[in-house]
Amino acid sequence: MERLQIVKIGGNVIDSPVELEKFLSEFSTLKGKKILVHGGGKIATALGEKLGIQSRYLHGRRITDGDTIDLVTAVYGGLINKQMVAALQGKGINAIGLTGADANLIPAKKRPINPVDFGWVGDVLGKQMPVATWQALLEAGLMPVVAPLTHDGAGHMLNTNADTIATSIAVALSTHYQVSLLFCFEKSGILLNVEDEQSRISQLNPITYKQLKADGCLFAGILPKLDNAFDAIAAGVPEVVIGPSADLPGMLAGRAGTRIAAF
Amino acid sequence: MERLQIVKIGGNVIDSPVELEKFLSEFSTLKGKKILVHGGGKIATALGEKLGIQSRYLHGRRITDGDTIDLVTAVYGGLINKQMVAALQGKGINAIGLTGADANLIPAKKRPINPVDFGWVGDVLGKQMPVATWQALLEAGLMPVVAPLTHDGAGHMLNTNADTIATSIAVALSTHYQVSLLFCFEKSGILLNVEDEQSRISQLNPITYKQLKADGCLFAGILPKLDNAFDAIAAGVPEVVIGPSADLPGMLAGRAGTRIAAF
Repeated sequence: MERLQIVKIGGNVIDSPVELEKFLSEFSTLKGKKILVHGGGKIATALGEKLGIQSRYLHGRRITDGDTIDLVTAVYGGLINKQMVAALQGKGINAIGLTGADANLIPAKKRPINPVDFGWVGDVLGKQMPVATWQALLEAGLMPVVAPLTHDGAGHMLNTNADTIATSIAVALSTHYQVSLLFCFEKSGILLNVEDEQSRISQLNPITYKQLKADGCLFAGILPKLDNAFDAIAAGVPEVVIGPSADLPGMLAGRAGTRIAAF
Repeated sequence: MERLQIVKIGGNVIDSPVELEKFLSEFSTLKGKKILVHGGGKIATALGEKLGIQSRYLHGRRITDGDTIDLVTAVYGGLINKQMVAALQGKGINAIGLTGADANLIPAKKRPINPVDFGWVGDVLGKQMPVATWQALLEAGLMPVVAPLTHDGAGHMLNTNADTIATSIAVALSTHYQVSLLFCFEKSGILLNVEDEQSRISQLNPITYKQLKADGCLFAGILPKLDNAFDAIAAGVPEVVIGPSADLPGMLAGRAGTRIAAF
């Protein structure tokens, strides 16, 4: 099977023009087929404040009301996505910016309002992903840049977690490609002490993960990302690494980040 | 050659949710391959005012400064484009929302600053259009929804006239498809008296156009659209009609709008 590298970058990278430019330059040198998934960043919140749209959160998750889904559709699907596409085109990469609504690439359903109504938030319907359409884009020599947005198939855009999107794409395309899934952020990897970049765990398997979690040794904010990473490995994605956006080659070579192991 | 219908809708249709819904419902019933090109509308201006970004105009054309290109990239490329894609997906059309930066579909260059600096405005490089990429998307069963944005190939997004984009796509794809190009707006067609919807001209050729223009019989605002339409016909697009977004079937059947004739 041909290799496919799926790289996810988070909001902190997007919020720093210097880090983003450095990342995109390095990303553009990766050989072969690849997909970039990006998160949101602080631009939407800052713009929302200027427009009088208040960000409301519940259990650390943003509630997406009608104004907010319009805002993130504009900022994630338009501003951030197209600026990244234009930058990559400028580096010779034939990028194509997409949301999950485009070509129905990421079918989703609105999250049930019970017990909590998160608003216009989507849960990915992974088994309905149109693998043939993804293949058609990749085989046409295009490099998808995916915004953290899906749709409900009934005319509404939905706000969707970028880690979940990256995992869903990786799982669906693992049937046709040898997938490497890289979650990039501003840290050196999964840390035993979130204050100490030297405390990186170089490899994690489900057993050590369960132990560390039970012992409260991991920063709570990282658990959803790790759950996504272990979901991907369990679903057959052969390589999953969580590591620094500033060292993509190191992550691929096993020198940087935390490698997720199936057992 | 297979038929390809390219439909352009303007800002007035986009600004009216009722008209837009009606248009999209009718558009979605058109058989065969098609491309939708949309303009901007007033949302960007309204949002810009809230954000303190002033719209500046020169000779009726918006000047696109740095804040404005970010604003229209968000609103045209994100909000309007993706809402339209989601709506079409809800009607069973496999729409894919794109700007000219995506897949480098519409190569452009920044307009020279001499004699007037319009800012981040793009002029389409029609001869560099990647026809094979357009074909790959259409042959994959996708229906492009194109926002009025291009890029300069060096990392910058550019604001670009939607009529010009529709014409450029029609001309480039006429080598491979039997193209019908429909410019849709809120009027019944080209009018001899802009106040009188009954004064529609059912057909215009270059000679009558030149005469009417010389005699000052045409509303000045319509001239750029007509120039685009005649450019398309002159470059070999076999069918060009300017007419009402509310009557697509009538435009195609020759009952509505103004048909542009090569001679």
